[in-house]
Amino acid sequence: MNFASDNVWGAAPEMLAALAAANGGAMPSYGEDPLTERLAEEMARVFERPVAVFPVISGTAANALALATITPPHGAILCHEDAHIVTDECGAPEFFTQGARLATLSGHNGKLAPETIGQALSRFVIGSAHSSQPAAISITQATEWGTCYRPEEIAALAAVARHHGLKLHMDGARFANAIASLGCTPAEATWKAGVDVLSFGATKNGALAAEAVIFFNPQDAHDFEFRRKRSGHLASKLRFVSAQLICALEENRWLAWAARANAFARALTGGLRGIDGVEIVCAVEANAVFAWLPQSMIQRLRAEGASFYDWSAPAGGRTLVRLVTSFATPEHDIERFLEIACQ
Amino acid sequence: MNFASDNVWGAAPEMLAALAAANGGAMPSYGEDPLTERLAEEMARVFERPVAVFPVISGTAANALALATITPPHGAILCHEDAHIVTDECGAPEFFTQGARLATLSGHNGKLAPETIGQALSRFVIGSAHSSQPAAISITQATEWGTCYRPEEIAALAAVARHHGLKLHMDGARFANAIASLGCTPAEATWKAGVDVLSFGATKNGALAAEAVIFFNPQDAHDFEFRRKRSGHLASKLRFVSAQLICALEENRWLAWAARANAFARALTGGLRGIDGVEIVCAVEANAVFAWLPQSMIQRLRAEGASFYDWSAPAGGRTLVRLVTSFATPEHDIERFLEIACQ
Amino acid sequence: MNFASDNVWGAAPEMLAALAAANGGAMPSYGEDPLTERLAEEMARVFERPVAVFPVISGTAANALALATITPPHGAILCHEDAHIVTDECGAPEFFTQGARLATLSGHNGKLAPETIGQALSRFVIGSAHSSQPAAISITQATEWGTCYRPEEIAALAAVARHHGLKLHMDGARFANAIASLGCTPAEATWKAGVDVLSFGATKNGALAAEAVIFFNPQDAHDFEFRRKRSGHLASKLRFVSAQLICALEENRWLAWAARANAFARALTGGLRGIDGVEIVCAVEANAVFAWLPQSMIQRLRAEGASFYDWSAPAGGRTLVRLVTSFATPEHDIERFLEIACQ
Amino acid sequence: MNFASDNVWGAAPEMLAALAAANGGAMPSYGEDPLTERLAEEMARVFERPVAVFPVISGTAANALALATITPPHGAILCHEDAHIVTDECGAPEFFTQGARLATLSGHNGKLAPETIGQALSRFVIGSAHSSQPAAISITQATEWGTCYRPEEIAALAAVARHHGLKLHMDGARFANAIASLGCTPAEATWKAGVDVLSFGATKNGALAAEAVIFFNPQDAHDFEFRRKRSGHLASKLRFVSAQLICALEENRWLAWAARANAFARALTGGLRGIDGVEIVCAVEANAVFAWLPQSMIQRLRAEGASFYDWSAPAGGRTLVRLVTSFATPEHDIERFLEIACQ
Repeated sequence: MNFASDNVWGAAPEMLAALAAANGGAMPSYGEDPLTERLAEEMARVFERPVAVFPVISGTAANALALATITPPHGAILCHEDAHIVTDECGAPEFFTQGARLATLSGHNGKLAPETIGQALSRFVIGSAHSSQPAAISITQATEWGTCYRPEEIAALAAVARHHGLKLHMDGARFANAIASLGCTPAEATWKAGVDVLSFGATKNGALAAEAVIFFNPQDAHDFEFRRKRSGHLASKLRFVSAQLICALEENRWLAWAARANAFARALTGGLRGIDGVEIVCAVEANAVFAWLPQSMIQRLRAEGASFYDWSAPAGGRTLVRLVTSFATPEHDIERFLEIACQ
Repeated sequence: MNFASDNVWGAAPEMLAALAAANGGAMPSYGEDPLTERLAEEMARVFERPVAVFPVISGTAANALALATITPPHGAILCHEDAHIVTDECGAPEFFTQGARLATLSGHNGKLAPETIGQALSRFVIGSAHSSQPAAISITQATEWGTCYRPEEIAALAAVARHHGLKLHMDGARFANAIASLGCTPAEATWKAGVDVLSFGATKNGALAAEAVIFFNPQDAHDFEFRRKRSGHLASKLRFVSAQLICALEENRWLAWAARANAFARALTGGLRGIDGVEIVCAVEANAVFAWLPQSMIQRLRAEGASFYDWSAPAGGRTLVRLVTSFATPEHDIERFLEIACQ
Repeated sequence: MNFASDNVWGAAPEMLAALAAANGGAMPSYGEDPLTERLAEEMARVFERPVAVFPVISGTAANALALATITPPHGAILCHEDAHIVTDECGAPEFFTQGARLATLSGHNGKLAPETIGQALSRFVIGSAHSSQPAAISITQATEWGTCYRPEEIAALAAVARHHGLKLHMDGARFANAIASLGCTPAEATWKAGVDVLSFGATKNGALAAEAVIFFNPQDAHDFEFRRKRSGHLASKLRFVSAQLICALEENRWLAWAARANAFARALTGGLRGIDGVEIVCAVEANAVFAWLPQSMIQRLRAEGASFYDWSAPAGGRTLVRLVTSFATPEHDIERFLEIACQ
Repeated sequence: MNFASDNVWGAAPEMLAALAAANGGAMPSYGEDPLTERLAEEMARVFERPVAVFPVISGTAANALALATITPPHGAILCHEDAHIVTDECGAPEFFTQGARLATLSGHNGKLAPETIGQALSRFVIGSAHSSQPAAISITQATEWGTCYRPEEIAALAAVARHHGLKLHMDGARFANAIASLGCTPAEATWKAGVDVLSFGATKNGALAAEAVIFFNPQDAHDFEFRRKRSGHLASKLRFVSAQLICALEENRWLAWAARANAFARALTGGLRGIDGVEIVCAVEANAVFAWLPQSMIQRLRAEGASFYDWSAPAGGRTLVRLVTSFATPEHDIERFLEIACQ
């Protein structure tokens, strides 16, 4: 019963088949291969427009490279204080941007509000060499709290961004879960709402190690190739990363997998909600459940082999925990988890 | 007939099997998994001592991370002017070291000589804040010219390094080819000869994307984990990278594959040597052949579908070309290549 | 009537005399001169112990170099959200540290409280490569709000720092004003209270361009010389910077000048406090006064030629303004300012 | 008898007078002052066109900031192997450019030749993400070997630069000595010959600490202000740096001082040339003399108090030394030096 993260699970069997299929014979290396070309076509189909696609192997790389491409060293990136780029990447954005500032903001349910951005911007002196210069807004979709920005919420942030000359980046490590949940198209949740660059995640959703940086305006990507190579993120046999991404997109597997993970999260939520002493935090809109559980229940679950992270220190006999589901979560683990929880 | 590089070929079938075997169930992410632990044991076996092993996915990342860990920003790295870190990594060492200097030196057959190092060191003012401070020597094994350093050659460079307080790094993107060629043990060609840190390559030799940074003195690796994470090179499902490296080491497959590639290079060399107008450059000690070929022969080969890189501009009716072989090179491609060359 | 900043005023006449006196003949460059040696002795006298002293020419350089020396690239620096290093240095700390994080905290009167530090530290995962690693606390003395940390307040922060293995940096751009105000010794306000490294400012207090980075434990400065040179902050004719600092320290001029500036601030405060509609914000403990002034009064003052910065947007018919005094402020400007304010 | 460097001498008396004159009253800080404005006018006069002028306090800062503004992190800067930026700045260009490459080239008399540049460029793969991308050529005027580029030599290098899309930077730490020697106008030796950005030095030639970065195409300077501030090189009381530069330019003092230093170098050369066992190296076109002196002569000179640097190890009973003269060199020191040399 592993609910620690969606990256504790392996890859979908289709992924391994895709790697085997990609393995035949010689192909140009460093992204000049036909699979990487085909990936661009798949992404264009999914996003309903030509896009610049750059496969990489980690979400941290995708985010940091994307942000560095749109933010100068003297720039500032406005983001939620709980954003993965703030709390879990050991300063990767600062490393890749060569020292830009993460301006961290608070917000309900892991989301940024336009007014918060507006207030934050007023702390910078635009055009003054004494002040870091706001250059980008970064949002996470689905958020670190398992919620999803609706397209109109994104559009409202994009309007602020455009008004102030900022680029809008979306950390889509769980973009699939968001799209599966929102019921809108990938286009509606990104460029049609004003997103400039997307970190498209597949690793947490079926792949072994495959993410893509997607620029909706290819000219924004002008020096991306140099940044990717220079940071060691241009895999020589790139075909194997591209093959994973194609596999996810084909037959819309990515959405099916994400929908499955989301359904497990809803099932967990539904089961937990009825139990005495349990309190669900935030709307469960993707594949993560945040819940206050009684200490005794937590001990019982762990004693029976359940894995999950504490998200707070114990307080008043209970602890906030995070439960993450995956396409690969055994259905029976959900049932068993709830069974133990109910005892 | 693809002799452009060893990274144009796919992975060994055993690699795909290893990935499939690694795919079962949940495992801790970010390198806390049992496969990564087992990799450390395999490497200890291969190198006959405990080592600190860090799997990454590209040779550029391995080199840059290794060098950054042993070189301060104000440091200098002495290396061959044709080193991959100089010519093919877009300044990755400078990026990861935060601006250290590559001091490029010449040397026969792609090798550095101790006297060259000595002379180069005399250009720096040790201890003076006006001068970059020599911190490391980096050598490539097998070299970019397809030759191999013998253990005593490495030991001579290591003696200079130790005498001047420098660390010795080995770019082992083709380390397997060197070991298969030299007939010594991995230990003899590394730490026993004075190597401090090795970029151990598997991608060019059977894997999809798997390299490892190996510190022979684990204390040298003190902040490596932060550097790897911060640069986006800590794969979340690291088990899949570790599984590839284990697969290579098990049953000494890495050496068998490399020996096969080396044998192909020798076969190419043998066949070419007898042909009028062909001149082999450098000893062919690994899986690369450098040869001056008549222009007409080059045209004929390419017309028949052979791929390889020019390594010089045309001069006097001939061009220097590089031919790289792989474990996966079809044997019949060698024969066919020589057949066309002879016509 | 210029109250915009203390750096709008020139230098004390004694400074120009000191430069002239330092100008005779040839001296070794780059800090090997006898004046820089003598500066170290003066600082040792002032701080009652040997210290490592490095003259530079700007406060931004002093802060950024000091912080970079004690913070690794993956480190985090805890500081007040209104700190100069956060709001006025265009990301210099990030540039010099190669991308460390400024973790910004709130606090009354521009001061950090130990509990705030404690809470902030709990957001980092110590030892985990996923998280930036807290490395330093930076405080400003006198603060950006014109208040001063008392030695026991500093000691309380230093205790937290030591407990968590952090270094304590003090931005002393207005250190003189603080010492003149607190009535303690420079030693009591720094190393005796646990400060590890001090940016000692003279530019705002009599000098043309002279600051010093002072390490109380010289071993902390191990690579400082390389950082200073590499950033272009080792002036070739360093004697002229050292001469300014010696001039300030000799005969305790620095404290006399600062006391004069402080007295002007108190006089301004005293005069303003009695005026209807004026509200003084924060205790006036150094040479800055923060006051809400009626909009009409502000217009009247500016019409008569007074210079000062707004510190808020207008609200309810009044605006928060900052008034900074200097040793060089003409006494008569204070009187005139208050006269116009009273009208 | 100090011939170690031109920066061992103090400032011209006119400089101290200029500082005193600049010291009256309050002025806006950070370069918004009337003196900095007037400096721009003076520079426009001297260079016969409007230019973007940025005063800083060290030549290392000027060079590194200039180069960083015209070179991306993945760029390469072509320069002489003996250039100050290579040998004496501890990697400042790499620090400010965030890791660009210095591609070091050889050349007679400290000068780069167009053919050398052409050959060096052929080692890069333009447009390929695998290769650092040539972005700038940097030359030193007067060179590190005391020679001067003639305008037509500069124009030939500029033609190569323009043809390959590179910018041309001139390290003019001793620009005054070159102009005084060449007898051309500052414009002819810079923008008229194709120089894009100049590090204009005054510190070695009369000032206390004053250099300027001059962009001949102001749009090239687009983000310079952020780079200067972020690196701590925007002095708060910038008027004092600007005042020094104005003082140098006014009445063409800079050229008179440089001419005096040059004349001393010629006098030294003339005197030494006649002495048995002395060999002058390079044409003496500025204020530095490179000469092989017999070991016994060197000992005699040093015993009598002469200071100068060895520029080689002893070889065959003699050593190459560097003798640098300054406007401030006492005339009598030249005579005495030659007297001792002749004994």
